[in-house]
Amino acid sequence: MNQSKTTPVGFRAIDVIRKKRDGVELTREEIEALVNAYTAGDVPDYQVSAWLMAVLWRGMTRPETAALTDAMLHSGEVLDFSSLRPRKVDKHSTGGVGDKTSLVLAPLVAAAGVAVPMISGRGLGHTGGTLDKLEAIPGFNVNLPVAEFRRVLEACGCAMIGQTAEIAPADRKLYALRDVTGTVESPYLICASIMSKKLAEGIDALVLDVKTGSGAFMKNEKDASFLAELMVETGERMGKQVVALITDMDQPLGNMIGNSLEVVEVVDVLRGAGPEDLRELCLHLAGWMLYLGRACKTVAEGTQISANLISSGKALERFQQMIELQGGDARVVDDPKRLPQAQHSTPVVSPAAGYISSMQCEQIGTACVILGGGRERKEDSVDPAVGIVLHKKVGDRIDAREPLATIYYNSAAKAERARQLIGESVRISEAPPPAKRPLIHRVIGKSGEKN
Amino acid sequence: MNQSKTTPVGFRAIDVIRKKRDGVELTREEIEALVNAYTAGDVPDYQVSAWLMAVLWRGMTRPETAALTDAMLHSGEVLDFSSLRPRKVDKHSTGGVGDKTSLVLAPLVAAAGVAVPMISGRGLGHTGGTLDKLEAIPGFNVNLPVAEFRRVLEACGCAMIGQTAEIAPADRKLYALRDVTGTVESPYLICASIMSKKLAEGIDALVLDVKTGSGAFMKNEKDASFLAELMVETGERMGKQVVALITDMDQPLGNMIGNSLEVVEVVDVLRGAGPEDLRELCLHLAGWMLYLGRACKTVAEGTQISANLISSGKALERFQQMIELQGGDARVVDDPKRLPQAQHSTPVVSPAAGYISSMQCEQIGTACVILGGGRERKEDSVDPAVGIVLHKKVGDRIDAREPLATIYYNSAAKAERARQLIGESVRISEAPPPAKRPLIHRVIGKSGEKN
Repeated sequence: MNQSKTTPVGFRAIDVIRKKRDGVELTREEIEALVNAYTAGDVPDYQVSAWLMAVLWRGMTRPETAALTDAMLHSGEVLDFSSLRPRKVDKHSTGGVGDKTSLVLAPLVAAAGVAVPMISGRGLGHTGGTLDKLEAIPGFNVNLPVAEFRRVLEACGCAMIGQTAEIAPADRKLYALRDVTGTVESPYLICASIMSKKLAEGIDALVLDVKTGSGAFMKNEKDASFLAELMVETGERMGKQVVALITDMDQPLGNMIGNSLEVVEVVDVLRGAGPEDLRELCLHLAGWMLYLGRACKTVAEGTQISANLISSGKALERFQQMIELQGGDARVVDDPKRLPQAQHSTPVVSPAAGYISSMQCEQIGTACVILGGGRERKEDSVDPAVGIVLHKKVGDRIDAREPLATIYYNSAAKAERARQLIGESVRISEAPPPAKRPLIHRVIGKSGEKN
Repeated sequence: MNQSKTTPVGFRAIDVIRKKRDGVELTREEIEALVNAYTAGDVPDYQVSAWLMAVLWRGMTRPETAALTDAMLHSGEVLDFSSLRPRKVDKHSTGGVGDKTSLVLAPLVAAAGVAVPMISGRGLGHTGGTLDKLEAIPGFNVNLPVAEFRRVLEACGCAMIGQTAEIAPADRKLYALRDVTGTVESPYLICASIMSKKLAEGIDALVLDVKTGSGAFMKNEKDASFLAELMVETGERMGKQVVALITDMDQPLGNMIGNSLEVVEVVDVLRGAGPEDLRELCLHLAGWMLYLGRACKTVAEGTQISANLISSGKALERFQQMIELQGGDARVVDDPKRLPQAQHSTPVVSPAAGYISSMQCEQIGTACVILGGGRERKEDSVDPAVGIVLHKKVGDRIDAREPLATIYYNSAAKAERARQLIGESVRISEAPPPAKRPLIHRVIGKSGEKN
């Protein structure tokens, strides 16, 4: 706990703002003083927001980025699981549509003997959030105190909670301010925000899933790679093994979007079924997590171990165990009707015959938000029952009037708006699209050089 | 009065911040909505400070600058002196050390039949302020209500007050925020701040005295000219005649710095004496004010009329009349001992024989602030009695141990710090400095093309 940090005598926020504004590198001490003073309430929002805009403008050097991450990390509690024998490895995704890999990975990797202490977020904007998906399971409690988080982790090798008040309070304050001041987009601020929270989990290694494409925050691969390199280097400067996979988010991942529906698809994958893209990405990320968790010699071996744990049912068993330990109804695994169900469903049919040439992925995410499945503002509540099931993905052949998706809804007016958005987002061409985008674009990080 | 302006439905400050951040031109409506919402308290400081930093980064187009000026101008009361027969002309200086021309110009120009409704500011940082100088005169009231301001203006053709709560409230709020967020320096924001206040005076024309040199905010002529052009074009877009003179502030103007002392020097100039640089600049600025006030056909003619009004004693008489109408003791004109007097004085002697090759003008201003003659923070009070009299200026020959200045002080410790600063600020060389900097570097503005 470092919340009693005091502001150094003579520290003036205005000097730090001016220095950054003029493009001069800040010292570790200056960054630390600013973060601590802001967290303690000694520096007002209006000074920090000017500083954030100056950071967005001028960028940060690698040492500045690491110093900011470190100051945010130590603004609160840093968990210590060193007494647990297995290595602790987590995965973080920068967010996408239909991205439910966390729910597959935590039990799968835990079943292989690597501990996964996962602290996740809620959906915001067009993207879904792990906590919202978990809460679709009746009774599942994501608000465990740290002692209980540790107990679940010890008992089943994985535990999934939301950010607590004790972890990285500076990030919570800074994120809220960035959100309303147009300073969310800075890769340096994104890096510090993500890495400060992840490194507070007391992990040894981290696999980053950096999304790129029309449904990601980083629309092009260049920006995604830049952010990935920044996060990997920042993590390494702080003594952690970090690997980043640049993965595709140019169409939704898997076929189901919406909280209850995504839990159904997670169970499908843990049973060895489910859509190929989701299954492949889960196995690949699990391979990396096992490799960094030293449960195997190569990533390929880790992927094979993971496939076996799915075939044997051990991963699904671990999922059920975690649900029970966190107060949820584990019967949803065998009886998906126990998950919240939408009252109505309606197909979205194709206007023409041909091939799906592209999907505007962000629009599909937004369609789910409109149905009530996500939130436009942080304070919005989420309807776990609603969502979208895609029957076709990019490259698939479709006939005129054939359903390309089904909308699950509780409000006819919202369903109509969602239908329109989905319709607009899907492009049909006469010929099949030339080349399929790869699922995994690149791997970034020294820890991956041997593979 | 426009203080009841409401924020348009659907207006979101975040959209305006993002747009400016991304370098996109804002519409007049967007700028107006932001300024009005901020003035009304509907948009918080932390959003506006991020926007201000984005403006400092991206700059503003001419239409944006005019829209911002206009919105700030109309955030409060705009005075209307159209019932007064003479043209109304004001002068504004961007601030310097020893710059007391306003006190000379208001009565001088009024004596020539052009009305001068002057709303001035206080000193901040190393520069002096007109209000502080006026308040050195016992009883002088700079806080007249608008009705009384008008009465004085009608009675003697000039009146000098401080900013009222009714005039440009948006500027007062924005300036306070810029001061603590490192966003003072933007020429676009400086322009809007100055022009919104000046245009609220109900004037027909404006002469800008934009200072450049070591004692000015704009240290080099390029920055000074840029700001001058911006202000001239903004004023012209708003239907006013505006001329800017880029004038020298590489050493103090005149010989006296400090509030009481500067009133003494003002009286000297109005008597036809006083230092040559101050006298020359006053006559030149007065020439321009009379020319824009249509009291003459050329600036040269205006300068001649002004010189005659000084010789005849009419300008000094008008100064006494204004002092009396604003409650001050006009006897200070004939008996300067009635002005606040410092208890002690001490010479600053030259360490060597030679020529004064340069003065670090800002340091001399700071020396006066240290004595108590200016303010480091807005809430500081000012000691009118203290100050500095320079016995030598740049280019003058000086002997070793000859006094180059006299410090007037009330605290020996402060005098010692001031002495050190003055000593450091003056450079002595063996040979005389090559070329003297001109007093007036350039004139900018269409209204000056004929001259």
